[in-house]
Parts: sequence; structure tokens; C-alpha cells
Amino acid sequence: MENKKSNNRVAQLAKAYLPILDWGSKYNGKTFSNDMIVALIVTMMLIPQSLAYALLAGLPPEIGLYASIAPLIIYAIFGTSRALAVGPVAVASLMTAAAAGQLASQGTPEYLGAAIALAMVSGLLMIAMGFLKLGFLANFLSHPVISGFITASGLMIAVGQLGPVLGIHLEGETLFANVISLVETISQTNVATAAVGIGSLIFLFWVRSGLKPLLLRAGMGKKLADVFVKIGPVVAIVATILIVALMGLADQGVAIVGTVPGGLPKITMPPLDFELWMKILVPALLISIVGYVESISVALTLAAKKRQRVDPDQELIALGASNVGAAVSGGFPVTGGFARSVVNFDAGAETPAAGAFTAIGIALATLFLTPLLYYLPNATLAATIIVAVLSLVDFGAMKHIWSYSKSDFAALATTIIITWSAGIEAGIIAGVALSIFLHLYKTSRPHVAVVGQVPGTTAFRNVKRHNVVTDPGILSLRVDESLYFPNARFLEDLINNSVADNSEIRHVILECPAVNAIDSSALESLEAINLRLKDGGITFHLSEVKGPIMDQLKKSHFIHNLTGKVHLTHYDAVASINPELAEKTRQATRPIATSKS
Amino acid sequence: MENKKSNNRVAQLAKAYLPILDWGSKYNGKTFSNDMIVALIVTMMLIPQSLAYALLAGLPPEIGLYASIAPLIIYAIFGTSRALAVGPVAVASLMTAAAAGQLASQGTPEYLGAAIALAMVSGLLMIAMGFLKLGFLANFLSHPVISGFITASGLMIAVGQLGPVLGIHLEGETLFANVISLVETISQTNVATAAVGIGSLIFLFWVRSGLKPLLLRAGMGKKLADVFVKIGPVVAIVATILIVALMGLADQGVAIVGTVPGGLPKITMPPLDFELWMKILVPALLISIVGYVESISVALTLAAKKRQRVDPDQELIALGASNVGAAVSGGFPVTGGFARSVVNFDAGAETPAAGAFTAIGIALATLFLTPLLYYLPNATLAATIIVAVLSLVDFGAMKHIWSYSKSDFAALATTIIITWSAGIEAGIIAGVALSIFLHLYKTSRPHVAVVGQVPGTTAFRNVKRHNVVTDPGILSLRVDESLYFPNARFLEDLINNSVADNSEIRHVILECPAVNAIDSSALESLEAINLRLKDGGITFHLSEVKGPIMDQLKKSHFIHNLTGKVHLTHYDAVASINPELAEKTRQATRPIATSKS
Repeated sequence: MENKKSNNRVAQLAKAYLPILDWGSKYNGKTFSNDMIVALIVTMMLIPQSLAYALLAGLPPEIGLYASIAPLIIYAIFGTSRALAVGPVAVASLMTAAAAGQLASQGTPEYLGAAIALAMVSGLLMIAMGFLKLGFLANFLSHPVISGFITASGLMIAVGQLGPVLGIHLEGETLFANVISLVETISQTNVATAAVGIGSLIFLFWVRSGLKPLLLRAGMGKKLADVFVKIGPVVAIVATILIVALMGLADQGVAIVGTVPGGLPKITMPPLDFELWMKILVPALLISIVGYVESISVALTLAAKKRQRVDPDQELIALGASNVGAAVSGGFPVTGGFARSVVNFDAGAETPAAGAFTAIGIALATLFLTPLLYYLPNATLAATIIVAVLSLVDFGAMKHIWSYSKSDFAALATTIIITWSAGIEAGIIAGVALSIFLHLYKTSRPHVAVVGQVPGTTAFRNVKRHNVVTDPGILSLRVDESLYFPNARFLEDLINNSVADNSEIRHVILECPAVNAIDSSALESLEAINLRLKDGGITFHLSEVKGPIMDQLKKSHFIHNLTGKVHLTHYDAVASINPELAEKTRQATRPIATSKS
Repeated sequence: MENKKSNNRVAQLAKAYLPILDWGSKYNGKTFSNDMIVALIVTMMLIPQSLAYALLAGLPPEIGLYASIAPLIIYAIFGTSRALAVGPVAVASLMTAAAAGQLASQGTPEYLGAAIALAMVSGLLMIAMGFLKLGFLANFLSHPVISGFITASGLMIAVGQLGPVLGIHLEGETLFANVISLVETISQTNVATAAVGIGSLIFLFWVRSGLKPLLLRAGMGKKLADVFVKIGPVVAIVATILIVALMGLADQGVAIVGTVPGGLPKITMPPLDFELWMKILVPALLISIVGYVESISVALTLAAKKRQRVDPDQELIALGASNVGAAVSGGFPVTGGFARSVVNFDAGAETPAAGAFTAIGIALATLFLTPLLYYLPNATLAATIIVAVLSLVDFGAMKHIWSYSKSDFAALATTIIITWSAGIEAGIIAGVALSIFLHLYKTSRPHVAVVGQVPGTTAFRNVKRHNVVTDPGILSLRVDESLYFPNARFLEDLINNSVADNSEIRHVILECPAVNAIDSSALESLEAINLRLKDGGITFHLSEVKGPIMDQLKKSHFIHNLTGKVHLTHYDAVASINPELAEKTRQATRPIATSKS
């Protein structure tokens, strides 16, 4: 009996932490052939991305391929999303470059070591956060901060990649520095490189905007047309390899990828260099959180379409394990990519096995295709990056945020400006800090309405918005916010001043239907208000206090010392003081106000 | 006409920023004689405090007297409280010692310069905050943080002052360091010093606890007895001066104040040393905020007793000007002291002029009494500090906070432990950061109730707390929190999972009476929820959305894309989907549930 129980417990835990046990048991031939087709398409899309994002991260191209093998297999075991496609992504690659660049110069073994360590530490952090159920930390990246940050880094990456596209070297880590560098060095543009780069750019933009309508008009299905669009970069790569090889452009200054070591990555434990790990802790944490946010958003969206579940904390564990997998196989930080996952989903991925098959595709490419990449121009890869990241830039979202909330827009604008002038990490930190501050600031001055009774009802509404009846001896206030430390003294001041200004007041009633919490700072303020009103001969009442808050207040002395009472409804409170007026108003025949304030 | 208007405007501004114009115009002989008596009592109390807090700040005693002249006169001009007594206080003095000690050693001109600069910078910061209406920043020091911080620094100061009381030198800036130092050096106690110090301590404790009952029993009035208790330190000082002088104890190693330069402070502008000012910016800001919090709390409490107004932003300007006054007259940071202001109030201070008269009293003492202070033992001053700060230690408040809220207690305990181990500044910063984090954490997992209709009513209540009627095709959720970035994704997960777990659901209704805000992150989540539910064939409705939020939502696309509707009441929402069940339940005769959840 004991044994059976503990076996059940183990089975439950295994199912929670190893989702593969769930879908694996139902796997069959049809799902297999489906997943194989999906894997083929995603592999075609992932090869150029892997190479390009390795370039963006300042790493040799094979590192991008390595990061697209082990992580995908590990995600297939631990992940809860059926459609997420894990691998290198643009923003995390740029963040890797920024963090590793702080510690070593590109091309050195130390730089590669730092990139691998970033994958290791951010993987371990994600696993820890997953087990500690800290997925909510990702929520601190508010929508304006993410939106600003993605747009800012998208433009920043695009400008930075103009260097390889034009065959010039851009100095600078920020957008502003890159723009200045671009202006200064544009005269040194290498014509052959620019021809390849700009040609690739034009082709890729045309594939995005012009090819699909053409294919549709030619009678192709919508889904198939989408697939063709997504593998456009492969066409560009093959074409420019041929052009560079056949025309001997490498001799005319076109930078090429050169020898890419073939063969599968070797599994080696990255050195346990705690000093290095401490140095990269903050960037690793930010890479984790930014990567997680991108991944979980797309996973939730795709799961909802089929009414499937995604477990946010298990996703942290799965992505963390994928990153540790990237690190031990010599790769750099990975996460679930947006565009790639959508392709995966649209192509009909039924299980995470599709990801594992993609990994096999990339492994085959690593084994057999690397010699063919010798003449691949960096300019083509840079062009694929530019086209990919520009699709992330979303000025429409900025406009929506501006019209919806000026304070959210302030957080967005701050994130963009700081990202461009001081880098991605500083931009995110400033945006998050400002978001939190603005929230605290807003709740520190909550909306408070003086309310009166709506004739013909027992309802109370804002005296400024409605024709209501009030008793001059009673001050009825409705606070539309939780009472806690940023606004505790605000309420004290408000009541002090209201009472000092009006000597007729004999009762103050606080209506609390929207008070979701009262912390001990607010409790202290309520006690002070009660005492001061008592000194002035005024009684203090509460009404419509929520159950859980009432439970908590009963643990304090406040309720016992309260000069008035806690009433169930505001009408009860007013009727207990001036029953005649309350009853007369309730009986009145004026129409019932319907809009709320 | 134009001229008259602008004159009125000037008069209004003058009255707002110069409260003296208000009470000064009503000043008469009776208020004058009242204020004179008060000033005499407060002067007797302030002389020993000024000397002692200068000692605590590591400064020569005359600096304490200087800080008790100009600031009091300036506060009388700009202050809005009738009873606040400005001057040096214990906590700000300790913070001054900590900050100045970072830059120079005690006794050097650089140390004194740093203390004066702290007064200058914190004064300017307060004036700026006052004009910018930033008084709310003080609210970030939540009640648990203040409570923890006052108790921690009270004990820390008391332990530190055991050094002078016993005639030993304690090394260390933190409580823990001081305790270790005390244990190591207690064997070097100077017997004569310890006799004076411990004698003073016993006398002062007896004055606090034993003298008042004695005087009351002897038939003295309560207020007069209080005055005698408060001037106990003067008696201790006079007595120990005589003992040390007559018994020649200075030759036996009793540290004495020695020569105190007489004469009024010279008015000199502190050097505009911006480099120094930048170095002390953070401690100056913390001294400002801590000082302001102490001052405004006592000012509000005393004003309320007489139904007077205190303007929190004008108070910042007044205290800021007082500190600038302290700086230009060679003093160190000042604020409104708790005990002193209560004495001022109880003694019957009618106007701020009482403070100005106190300043004259201190000025006279500086002119004529300084020679008498030669034999004043440091041990006596240290004893007065210990007695004063131990009265601040409030274990009762800690107990209340523990029973009221465990998370508030965590903030309190963190503040105490960090203050004791790493100092006052670190303690405050850690406490504030933890308070903010805990608030965000709590609101990131708001209380959400599935609600159903109470039979016989149109009211909806928590299905877990009440016998209510629900339709299996409708999921009714009430969220008891504003929707904003920390909890935006929480709601997404919740609804995704609820819908994934229950295939009967065809409608989701969100009841929003306690939603006081929806920021653009939450709007994004609501849009995602709406889209995902739509993909699953489920309509999404809102009910009881507040007026201001509805106004804001109308600016977004969300309302237009919403698959359901926004209903005025939750009953309307349910009745629009299943009118028969709603009407039948409303007609039912079961008793109406009254308690709220």
C-alpha cells in the first residue's frame, strides 16, 4: 500500500517534469510522418538563422549550428508546448555579444567561453526559477518595456548589420555610436560586398512582400506559399554562394564565412569558473527573462489555438535545460523563437518530436553541408538578420500605447532611448524601474470620490457625476484603490483637510468596495485618522469591507478602538446615523442613475 | 483690474509660502506671554539635547547649539505646524556621523565640512521636493520599515553610547561591531567615568518612571509634572558638572566637554563643493526623507488635535529652509523632533513664534553659558542619549505587525537585520526595496473567485463560500485587484487553464468591481485572452467595469474586437446568455446571503 502510493507519487512527478511521457505514449505513424515534414521545413529555415545569429553574437558560424541540435532534443523531452521551436534568436544573440564583449574581444577563446558560460548560467537560473515557481518574475517586463525594447533592439541590430552588408567595420555598441560610425565610414564601402548585400536585402524584402501574392495568384495554397516565403533565405544563401564562388568575389574583398569545421559538437562540461559566472550573472538573468518572455508568449498563443495547456514553470525548466544543453555542446543562449514556432505550428507540428527531428536535420547539415558554406558571404547573413529583425519593429504598438496610456508610453520611450544610448541591459532595467515607479506613483494618489445617495435607491455615487442626496454632517468617501504604504498618508491628509475645512462634519464613512488590501502602514494611518477624528469629536466608520480584509482587521486593535462601526453596506452606515434622510431618499421617486463612477 | 488680479495672486502665493503672514497678523499680548513660557521650557530641554546630539554626530558641542538657533527662526517663518519644535534629533545625528565618517575622521575640519554640507544638500533637496510636490516620496518609507529602522537605530545608538558612559572607546559602525568591541574592551572601563555615567543613567530612568507618580502624589498638576520630567537632563547635567568640578574627576580620566567657544554662530555660505555634494547625495536624501517622515508624523498628529491644517509640501520647504539655515550658520542636519514637539504642544505653544523665542533662549545660552559647560562629562550626555533613544524602541509595534501581516513583518525584520549588520542607509534601502517587491508579488497573484448567483437575488458570490447557482456553460470570474503588468499573465494562465480543463465552457465573464486600473500590459493580456477564447469558440464578456476604466478602454481596439459585451452588472451579463436560469434563480425564495467574500 505504502509502496503503491509512493509509486503513484513518482509517476505524478515524472509526468509533471517529463511531459514526453504523456505525448510519447500516444505516438503513432501518422504523427510521425507529420512531424517529419514539419522538421524538414523548419530545418530549411533554421540553418540560415543559426549561421546568422552566431554572426550577430560575434561567434563562429558552427556555434550557431551546435546551438540548434542538443537544445531542441532536450526541449522535446521537458517542454510542455507542442509547437515551440527552440534555437538561437536575434535579441538574445545581441545580448550575448554585448555581455561577452565586456569580458573579451571577438574571436578569442575567452569570448567563446563567455558566450558558453552565458548559456550555462542562464540555463541554471531558469531551472532554479522553474523549480522555485518564480515564472511570475517575467511579468515585471511590462508590455511597454518589451515593446520598446524589441523595437529599439530591432532597429539597433539592423543598423549594426549594415556594416557587414556594405563591407565596412562599424565601431560602437549602441545605436547612436553605430550611426555615427556608419556616417564616418560609409565612404569605405566595398562595392562587391554592397552588391551582394543590398541584392540579398532587396530579394529578401521582395520574398516577404511580393512573392506570396504572386504564388497565391499562381494558384498555390496559402500555407504552402507561406512555407516558400519562410525558406527564402535559403535561396538567397545558395544563390550568393554560387555568385561569390563563380565570380571570385572573395578576392575583391567580399568577406566570406570560410572553413566551417564539420562534425557533431563535442559534449564537454564548461569549466566551473565561478568568478566568470558572477561577472555575467546580471546579463545571464536578463537573457533568461527576455528569452523566457518571448518563448512563453508564443507558446501560450499557439497552445490556446488548440485548447492545449502550457505550464509556465515547467517551460522555465525546459528552456533552462535546453540552455544547459547548448552550453555542454559548445553552443550559446537559445530560446523559443517567434517566427520559427509559428512556422512549426502552421506546418502542422503535432508533438515536440518535430523539434527533435529538426535537430537531426541540423546535425546532418553539420556533418555534410559545412564544406558548401565556404563561399557564403557574411553580407547575405547580415541581410537575413536585417529582414528578420525589422519585422519585429512595431510602431503601431507604440501608437496604441500612446493613445491608451501616457504613463505606459513614458516607460516605452524611456526603454527605447536608454537602449539606444546605453545598451540593452540598461534599457530593460530603466524601463522596469520606471514601470514600477509609475505604478506606485499612480496608486499613491488614488481616485477618491465623495459619494451621496441616489434618490429612489440604496446606492451611493460620486457627488460630482450624479444628482445625489448628502447629509452635511456626514462625509462619505469611496476610495478606489487598495490602501497600502504609498497612499497611506494621502488618506490621512485628505481626511484631515476635509475635516479642517468643514466644521459641520460629525461623521466620516469610508466606503471600501474597491479596497483589495490594507497593509500595516495603512492600518497605522486608519488608526491615526480614527484618533484624530476622535480628538475633534467626529466618529469614523467603514462600509463594504471585503471578507478577507475584515478577517485581517479583526486581528488588529483598530476595530476595537474604532469610534464608529464597520457596516455591511454604505446605506446601512448612513441609515445608522440619519435614518430619516436615508429612508426618505430611498422612497423618493427620482430615476435611478445607471452609469458608474 | 489686471493689477488687482496679479496683486491677489501675489498675496495668495505669499500666504501659501509664508504662513507667518497668516498667524502673525493675529498675534497679541496673550499669545506672546504663552509662547514665552513655552520657549523657556523647551530651551531647558533643548540645551542638553543639542550638546548630546552633536556628540552623537561626532561634532563639537557648540555645533549642536548653532543647529538650534537659525533653523528655529526660519521654521517659524515658513512652517505650517503650530507646535513643531525643530532642532537636532538622534537618528539624523547618527546618520550624519555615518555619512561624514565615510569621508573624513572625526575632529578634522573635513568632517565638520561634510556635516555642514549634509545639512546644505538635504535642505536643498527638501526645498526642491517641496516645490515639485514630491512629499509623497516619504510614503515609500512604509510603517514596517520606519518601525524596524527606529527600533534598530535606537538600540544601535544606545549600545554605541555605552562607550562614553563607561569611558571606553568602541570601534565599529554597526551594532554587531559595537557589541564585539564592547565585549573586548569592557575590562578597560574607567571607574570614575562609569560612576558618573551609570549614575546619570539611573537618575534619568528614575526621572522617567519614578518621578512623575511622586510629583502627582505630592499634588502637582499633570502638565507641570510632565515639564519637570522633561527637564530632568538639565538637573543631571548641572549635578554632574558640579561633581566633576568639585571632585577633580577630570584628572581621573573622566572625559569632559572642555572649552566650548562662546558667541553666536557666524553666517557663512558653505563652499559650493559639487564633488563633495555628489558624494553625499544619497545619505543627504535619506536624512531628508527620514527627517521629514519623523517631522510630518508629529506635526499631523498635533495639528489634528486642534483641527488645524498642516501642508505636507510646504513643510518640506520649511524644513529644507531650516536645514539650509543650519548649514549657513555652521550647524548640522535638523528636523522636527517628536518628544520636543509634544512638550511644545502640551506646554501650550500657540504659534510658531514659540520656536523663535526658543532660538533666542539658545542664543543667550551660547553667549553666556558656554564657560559653565567646561566640566560637563561626556558620560552624562551619552546617558541622556541612551534614555532618549531607548524610548523609541517599540517591541509592541513589532508584535502588532507580526500578528497583522507576516509579509510586513518580513520587511520590518529585514530592515532591522540589515541596519544592525550593514548600517542605517543599507537598512532603509533594503527595507524599502523589499516592501515594494512584496507588494508587487502579492498583487501578481490576486484573489480570484469563481462566482455564482445567490438564489432570490441578482447578486453573485464566491462559489466556495456560498450556496449559489451556476450555469456549466458560463465561467464567471471576479478579480479582486487592479489588472497591471505583474498580474497580466497570471490572468491569461488562469483563463487558459480553466478553459482547457473544462470543455463545457462556452462563455467567460470577468466581473471587475474591484479592478481600479487596467494598464497596457493587462490590455494586451485581455486582447490575447479574447483572441484565444475566440479560437476555442468561446465568447468573452466583462461586467461592472468602473467609469474611468471604461473611458480608457474605449480608446483601445479591445472593446471593438471583444467577442462578447461589456455589461453594466454581472446579472445583466449572465441574463444575456441564459435568461431563463438567471430569472428562475432571481425568483427563487432561498435566503439572501449577506456576508461578502
